[in-house]
Amino acid sequence: MLRNIKNRVLIVAANPDDEILGCGGTVARFIKEGCEAYTLILGEGITSRDEKRDKAKRQKELDELKKQIFTANKILGVKNIFVYDFPDNRFDTVPLLDIVKIIEKIKNNIKPNIIFTHYEKDLNIDHIITYQAVLTVTRPLPTESVKEIYSFEILSSTEYNYPLSFSPNVFFDISEDIDKKIEAIKKYKSELKDFPHPRSLEGVKLNAKYWGMHVGVKYAEAFKCVRVVK
Amino acid sequence: MLRNIKNRVLIVAANPDDEILGCGGTVARFIKEGCEAYTLILGEGITSRDEKRDKAKRQKELDELKKQIFTANKILGVKNIFVYDFPDNRFDTVPLLDIVKIIEKIKNNIKPNIIFTHYEKDLNIDHIITYQAVLTVTRPLPTESVKEIYSFEILSSTEYNYPLSFSPNVFFDISEDIDKKIEAIKKYKSELKDFPHPRSLEGVKLNAKYWGMHVGVKYAEAFKCVRVVK
Amino acid sequence: MLRNIKNRVLIVAANPDDEILGCGGTVARFIKEGCEAYTLILGEGITSRDEKRDKAKRQKELDELKKQIFTANKILGVKNIFVYDFPDNRFDTVPLLDIVKIIEKIKNNIKPNIIFTHYEKDLNIDHIITYQAVLTVTRPLPTESVKEIYSFEILSSTEYNYPLSFSPNVFFDISEDIDKKIEAIKKYKSELKDFPHPRSLEGVKLNAKYWGMHVGVKYAEAFKCVRVVK
Amino acid sequence: MLRNIKNRVLIVAANPDDEILGCGGTVARFIKEGCEAYTLILGEGITSRDEKRDKAKRQKELDELKKQIFTANKILGVKNIFVYDFPDNRFDTVPLLDIVKIIEKIKNNIKPNIIFTHYEKDLNIDHIITYQAVLTVTRPLPTESVKEIYSFEILSSTEYNYPLSFSPNVFFDISEDIDKKIEAIKKYKSELKDFPHPRSLEGVKLNAKYWGMHVGVKYAEAFKCVRVVK
Amino acid sequence: MLRNIKNRVLIVAANPDDEILGCGGTVARFIKEGCEAYTLILGEGITSRDEKRDKAKRQKELDELKKQIFTANKILGVKNIFVYDFPDNRFDTVPLLDIVKIIEKIKNNIKPNIIFTHYEKDLNIDHIITYQAVLTVTRPLPTESVKEIYSFEILSSTEYNYPLSFSPNVFFDISEDIDKKIEAIKKYKSELKDFPHPRSLEGVKLNAKYWGMHVGVKYAEAFKCVRVVK
Amino acid sequence: MLRNIKNRVLIVAANPDDEILGCGGTVARFIKEGCEAYTLILGEGITSRDEKRDKAKRQKELDELKKQIFTANKILGVKNIFVYDFPDNRFDTVPLLDIVKIIEKIKNNIKPNIIFTHYEKDLNIDHIITYQAVLTVTRPLPTESVKEIYSFEILSSTEYNYPLSFSPNVFFDISEDIDKKIEAIKKYKSELKDFPHPRSLEGVKLNAKYWGMHVGVKYAEAFKCVRVVK
Repeated sequence: MLRNIKNRVLIVAANPDDEILGCGGTVARFIKEGCEAYTLILGEGITSRDEKRDKAKRQKELDELKKQIFTANKILGVKNIFVYDFPDNRFDTVPLLDIVKIIEKIKNNIKPNIIFTHYEKDLNIDHIITYQAVLTVTRPLPTESVKEIYSFEILSSTEYNYPLSFSPNVFFDISEDIDKKIEAIKKYKSELKDFPHPRSLEGVKLNAKYWGMHVGVKYAEAFKCVRVVK
Repeated sequence: MLRNIKNRVLIVAANPDDEILGCGGTVARFIKEGCEAYTLILGEGITSRDEKRDKAKRQKELDELKKQIFTANKILGVKNIFVYDFPDNRFDTVPLLDIVKIIEKIKNNIKPNIIFTHYEKDLNIDHIITYQAVLTVTRPLPTESVKEIYSFEILSSTEYNYPLSFSPNVFFDISEDIDKKIEAIKKYKSELKDFPHPRSLEGVKLNAKYWGMHVGVKYAEAFKCVRVVK
Repeated sequence: MLRNIKNRVLIVAANPDDEILGCGGTVARFIKEGCEAYTLILGEGITSRDEKRDKAKRQKELDELKKQIFTANKILGVKNIFVYDFPDNRFDTVPLLDIVKIIEKIKNNIKPNIIFTHYEKDLNIDHIITYQAVLTVTRPLPTESVKEIYSFEILSSTEYNYPLSFSPNVFFDISEDIDKKIEAIKKYKSELKDFPHPRSLEGVKLNAKYWGMHVGVKYAEAFKCVRVVK
Repeated sequence: MLRNIKNRVLIVAANPDDEILGCGGTVARFIKEGCEAYTLILGEGITSRDEKRDKAKRQKELDELKKQIFTANKILGVKNIFVYDFPDNRFDTVPLLDIVKIIEKIKNNIKPNIIFTHYEKDLNIDHIITYQAVLTVTRPLPTESVKEIYSFEILSSTEYNYPLSFSPNVFFDISEDIDKKIEAIKKYKSELKDFPHPRSLEGVKLNAKYWGMHVGVKYAEAFKCVRVVK
Repeated sequence: MLRNIKNRVLIVAANPDDEILGCGGTVARFIKEGCEAYTLILGEGITSRDEKRDKAKRQKELDELKKQIFTANKILGVKNIFVYDFPDNRFDTVPLLDIVKIIEKIKNNIKPNIIFTHYEKDLNIDHIITYQAVLTVTRPLPTESVKEIYSFEILSSTEYNYPLSFSPNVFFDISEDIDKKIEAIKKYKSELKDFPHPRSLEGVKLNAKYWGMHVGVKYAEAFKCVRVVK
Repeated sequence: MLRNIKNRVLIVAANPDDEILGCGGTVARFIKEGCEAYTLILGEGITSRDEKRDKAKRQKELDELKKQIFTANKILGVKNIFVYDFPDNRFDTVPLLDIVKIIEKIKNNIKPNIIFTHYEKDLNIDHIITYQAVLTVTRPLPTESVKEIYSFEILSSTEYNYPLSFSPNVFFDISEDIDKKIEAIKKYKSELKDFPHPRSLEGVKLNAKYWGMHVGVKYAEAFKCVRVVK
């Protein structure tokens, strides 16, 4: 068994589908083994397609994507989902502090001991800012509930930031959970591309097989250990 | 004796109390040994406590904190203090250039040869931006007065940014100046916490003792050498 | 001969004269050897001189500088020049996405296979943001035309960012092209300083001689390989 | 409770007392909570005091030190201790492969799932080589027993290697185990110095208090996560 | 077409099969497109299996492996192969200078303009030393023939060195050459393992597909640009 | 004036002429301003030219080079010179500890407060080992005389190690001392090459002018601050 049942996991994702791409298999496994998991999605994930942000114009897609969030996370067994609508690919137009305060509220509510979030040197500006905000929110004071933070990669983003720097050192075996991850990512129909685009079903699977090979298992998700206090 | 009496020191701090936490002991020693020192504080240090910045609501605390700045710096013997009110923990909402221009004005006025400022990879967004602004202001042209720049750590900020990267290589022995540092930080009553919070009297002392042990003295402050021209 | 004649080069520069300082000799050589080159300049390069941006006040200088862009690039033989007016030294006040979309438009139009752009850890905020935007625009999907990206240094900017980190690994021999580079940079009269300022004729030449010595040629321009797909 | 009782811990230390300085508190805690722990010490720890290695001359001290190993490790509750006599501070005179083969033998014998060992950029040449050897021995193939590797710092060695680079991200709370660590290190009488030497009782305690403050506990040991597969 | 026909490629590999694993597809493609390629293998690749090096005992395997070198490289179309017998996994017992002098001799003989060699922070000590030696041999003086150096990864070695640091930025599309690479590596029967061991046929293919996905092609080999002078 | 007259400087150089190339101008200036300086040269600097070290064969050149050491250092005004004969470019065949013990002896004899030595990531193996040895010898205990350590670059060595990593942050203005540096290096006739070889008179001067331009002076030597305790 992976861990004792008291674990409370919070995924802090910048935009919809990041939570599945980044740690969907691992979280499915945690839940299967008795943990509770929660997903926080900060951005709306759509409006960057226009030159000027226009939520009204994209309302239908936004509604559709929101539904996908719930169906995808349901497959993993996530207990509760929190969705905000910070502007997609424009987190740099929002004060960092506003994002900090949202994460803080959810975190204080959930009291997770484990957080999965983005990698600090991702290509996507929303991902970078999410990482900074998470660290600000989880200062390891005696009263802090969060004891473990791991950062994940997001296909077609992290691996497009040069110089490549994602250097994982924590690997979760998801050999029995890869199917659930694939099933969940399928729900994000509008986000999926055709292989060889990395954000494709075959891309997701190839990536998990690659990290699995690195550590002697069939499929794995790779993380960088940010901080662990035990 | 530490240095010849011609030294003119400028501390460029993001928010009140950073100047004491970062280099209070060293600056006290410089002054004791005949140098002149000046403090520039860029931010007001209070309003980030609210969801929306509301200076009016916090006016009393702001006034109180401003008084603490002066009493704390007086203990060190700082000759003059410049205080601005960039929004606390929201320097990212201000154009970098505005901060650059303020530091430039003060620097051209004081003509310091030494600057102490924040560390470039701090957790706090105000600290990061202050570092960038200082480097922009002090381009080492023939006419530039600043010949030495050192960056300092700020307890409960620098050491909370993972991966940890503060890698000091310049240490000032403050064995005879630690008391003055402690006395000065005490003036910032509203900012102090109880140990084991690092921003506590015991935390400040422990930190100085730790770096002292690293370099064979009783108490030390640790800096990263940014640039020295001699 | 340097390369086959099919090369289409796009320079993505933050502000006027960066394109010459960064890669003027190399681009002159590419053109001489049969390639087509295009210059995209994102910022207007002037208004940061004022405390508040005031384009009207600086209109004459802005017009003058725009003329210089064309005469300087003409010397290299650049085929077409695209000039935008993002606010000088204030790219941090613009959403990154807006800059991304401009570069994307030009790139899709030109379909270059090579891009020269800024270095990711430059001192200048406009340079940093330009680098981020270029990487975002050139995700190496099967349909992407850009196959090679190199980042350049800008004198009196890159080398003023401490800790120094520009670590070039691609060097173009510009021994026969240095004169053209000097001639082009001369057109930017308003931007040139007297030596020992690095942004001077002697400074530019010294720098090229320095990198030349590093790699066994008379004059060279130095680049960091960002990504090459062949 | 820290971890489930199946954990089997192997400490791979270069020289005597490294195992206590590096992870004595953590291993005491693991054992207290039901794990089995083993210590492998590769070097004899004495002969570097002479210009030419002369084991005969130092036999008495070598014998004495070997006794200390056993009494110190007994305090922690270590189940078995393996001691080799690679030449102190001269591991660079031994083929790396010889050290690899020794660690391999012990590891295959113990089948640990956790290894604690030195930090890769220590000052001490024996420490560096030990790290390299451990990584070579624990390639994460399907049959590999070792699932977690953490590297530790050694006072008066790691912190003397400039640029400082030890950047821990895994912290074990040893508030209840610090006394046992102190008790164990006391057994290494011949190795202890007076404070402010870091390798002193006060130094060891100060260091644990410092890392404790970093993560909100009374005393902690700090590690860098090398690789974890779960 | 990849490059003009004048290219002369030298692979400098530490041990047999590294030349195929590292750059077999790329070199096959270079040859196909008209270049000449040469392989230099420094070590014998076998004797590290014994506690004490005993060439006599392993003579049969050594002879067998040498034959495999020739058949494997023949598949790629390598023009000439140079094989030395530095002790496998014990390059640290040989003066670096001895290795330097061998590479120098071959290089002066071949006069390659491109070298492919190992990555500087590999796990394998032979690989690290080979990299150092290559750099020493190819100082970019005016008379130096070598104009491009790229470092490659070796499966089950590079990716086992933590922290992971291989950060490739040059990718060669080997979609049409992967079969030749696989065919060549098959010749090293004694070196191949079963998947999920990375040094397996499936592992080699997975790795090439993974890097291909990163850059929008079917299969790719990944390299770090060491130095290019053009 | 640079510094007070109590400074005692020790240069720890791997091989003859490194002391001039690395810090000749700065040390000349220190001496001019009243300091005492000492040179320690560890290696003999010649025998690496042969495949097997043969001191007898090279005795004449060794004698000649030794004379050059004295005449060159005399020009700077160095007070005393210590010369050892560790094997040129083969320091890796000597136990690190042997080199440590030599430096220790000289250092305890001279009791310098400042050491100039090689850069830790140089290309030359002797340089790397010298750096490691110096750090081992100067652990900053209360009784340690050495308070400042700076590392220097060596032309045609440091800048040939890729990835380039020498990142200086301490610059000494040698505008008035460059002639003395040039005069001294001229004494090493047998070591000098013709420009564009970096180890030429023009190369040395170009390098000093380049760093001078970086920091607003005519000529400068560039160093990395290793550790300063004040």
